[in-house]
Amino acid sequence: MKSYVRLRFASVVAIVAGLALSTQAIPQTDPLPSWNDGAAKKAISEFVRATTDKTSARFVPPEERIATFDQDGTLWVEHPLYTQVVYCLDRVPAVVKATRDLANVEPFRTVLSGDRKAIAKLSTDDLLKILEATLTGMSVDEFKAEAKNWLKTARDPRWHRHYTELTYIPMLELLKYLRANAYRTYIVTGGGQDFVRVYSEEIYGIPPEQVVGTASGTKYGYDQNGKPFLTKEPKLLLNDNNAGKPEGIHLMIGRRPYAGFGNSTGDRQMLEYTKAGDGERLTMLVLHDDANREYAYGPALGLPNTKVGTFTQALYDEAKKQAWVVISMKSDWNRIFAFEK
Amino acid sequence: MKSYVRLRFASVVAIVAGLALSTQAIPQTDPLPSWNDGAAKKAISEFVRATTDKTSARFVPPEERIATFDQDGTLWVEHPLYTQVVYCLDRVPAVVKATRDLANVEPFRTVLSGDRKAIAKLSTDDLLKILEATLTGMSVDEFKAEAKNWLKTARDPRWHRHYTELTYIPMLELLKYLRANAYRTYIVTGGGQDFVRVYSEEIYGIPPEQVVGTASGTKYGYDQNGKPFLTKEPKLLLNDNNAGKPEGIHLMIGRRPYAGFGNSTGDRQMLEYTKAGDGERLTMLVLHDDANREYAYGPALGLPNTKVGTFTQALYDEAKKQAWVVISMKSDWNRIFAFEK
Repeated sequence: MKSYVRLRFASVVAIVAGLALSTQAIPQTDPLPSWNDGAAKKAISEFVRATTDKTSARFVPPEERIATFDQDGTLWVEHPLYTQVVYCLDRVPAVVKATRDLANVEPFRTVLSGDRKAIAKLSTDDLLKILEATLTGMSVDEFKAEAKNWLKTARDPRWHRHYTELTYIPMLELLKYLRANAYRTYIVTGGGQDFVRVYSEEIYGIPPEQVVGTASGTKYGYDQNGKPFLTKEPKLLLNDNNAGKPEGIHLMIGRRPYAGFGNSTGDRQMLEYTKAGDGERLTMLVLHDDANREYAYGPALGLPNTKVGTFTQALYDEAKKQAWVVISMKSDWNRIFAFEK
Repeated sequence: MKSYVRLRFASVVAIVAGLALSTQAIPQTDPLPSWNDGAAKKAISEFVRATTDKTSARFVPPEERIATFDQDGTLWVEHPLYTQVVYCLDRVPAVVKATRDLANVEPFRTVLSGDRKAIAKLSTDDLLKILEATLTGMSVDEFKAEAKNWLKTARDPRWHRHYTELTYIPMLELLKYLRANAYRTYIVTGGGQDFVRVYSEEIYGIPPEQVVGTASGTKYGYDQNGKPFLTKEPKLLLNDNNAGKPEGIHLMIGRRPYAGFGNSTGDRQMLEYTKAGDGERLTMLVLHDDANREYAYGPALGLPNTKVGTFTQALYDEAKKQAWVVISMKSDWNRIFAFEK
């Protein structure tokens, strides 16, 4: 190739590249259409801008871009009972059938009675017994198949929707927006890691390896054909609540997040840990203040405690002091669910 | 833009694109130049071809492409002592200085004596005491800074190189080749997770969140300014050896790997678990049979057991029975280290 040809070729490449760039830049659509303009939406956009702009002093290299999300109450509905607890209660008859002697033992007897009021009054210790009996003792693959199957059929008591439809559209937009900006999005949940992994990829686009949750141990063994399998054991490895959240983040991710999202006292330490890092950090709390479209609960609203994650006055005070952003479902979100018209 | 202009523009784009494509396609370079032609190299190429070709019945969707690698003896030298053990021995004086009463207590007294023969004879229990004393009790950040610093100065006794130079070039090529084919590469090591995370990104391109290893718990707390930090605790959460490897893979990744690489009996269950999955799976064992360029050890070669990972006759037999591929360092690798000319 003679040099003038090379020059012409180079300028054609430059023109084509320039055209491609300018075409991409024109349709500037809002990545967060379900968010109303306000402090919450602005905090998100400003955080993304500052940490992804190479000329910014607060630029974060892509490999360090980690965002962690609580699940229940932050990405989907947690009221009146955590979905996983409903799953465990629904599993009780099958477990009792397999282990006959449980039928007359509390708390299983109460669950079998079907008495909703009595079930609602079960203590945390009772619920833990039910969780252990229904979430362990089977192989990892059996558990996965059962949970998957349940999610296909079970429906929530208020909207009569599959639980996987009760995800918050604004948070799905936020997950996508962060991922489009090279953030890896993790779930860090007090719920069971294996349970959340069953659906996280499909409904949130979060793969199993990016789900950190309360985890029990497994035990490696062989079936009668010598084929290896893992059994879920009643041995708690990680209680991924409160201080367990930053501990779980260190165990499973090994990096401090740049952004953390929660909705209750169980997320406090995760947000503290996120915010304590150098540079720009985004920490946000979802406040359930919309009884009409979703639910309103928690002491910060002057309402009583519930069985699910609690937004206390102390959490509200810490949020203010530490400049965490409180998301009001009522005023910050113009749409909550995909099934709303 | 008039239509003939658009046509001309389109054809320019096509020509430029075509040129770019043809330039890329011509130099079909070998992604594994340090591997000699043979069964091992062929097994790798065939596995990648079968699992990434959309027309293949053995195609694996990108999101499921997980490859797990043991570290010591598989990605870098483990003989005569695991690097982490050397680190812990080197740390003993500082720990004893901080806790004076340890100076006259075994096994610390022996380590302080500097008597190499006596140190080499320390029992596994003694080593565990040393590991606990030198790897826990400090903050996660302090540990990271100390380990990083040590790696910059310490040198191995044979080549007098930094330990991070003792990585196997053929395995680095394999990691890159798999990643170029959308495999996510994980380290699954019996070594300490936090120790390996200090250097894995720099030397293997494997980020901290893709390191699964023996892990102790951490404890969340606050310093005098109220700033939160994590302290490394002497509480074992995961012993990532033998059955602990598939258990650790389930805990941290939640998917069964499609490819698994090891070099000793501690990797047996990981390879069994990998191979037991449906479809195409690649399982390989590195055999240390090159006393000249690296080391030769282990019962499968008729040599005595060593303090490091052991390739027993039983492992060799299982490898044959299950069609795991044995990599001979001597005959499969034409180059081992980057510092070789």
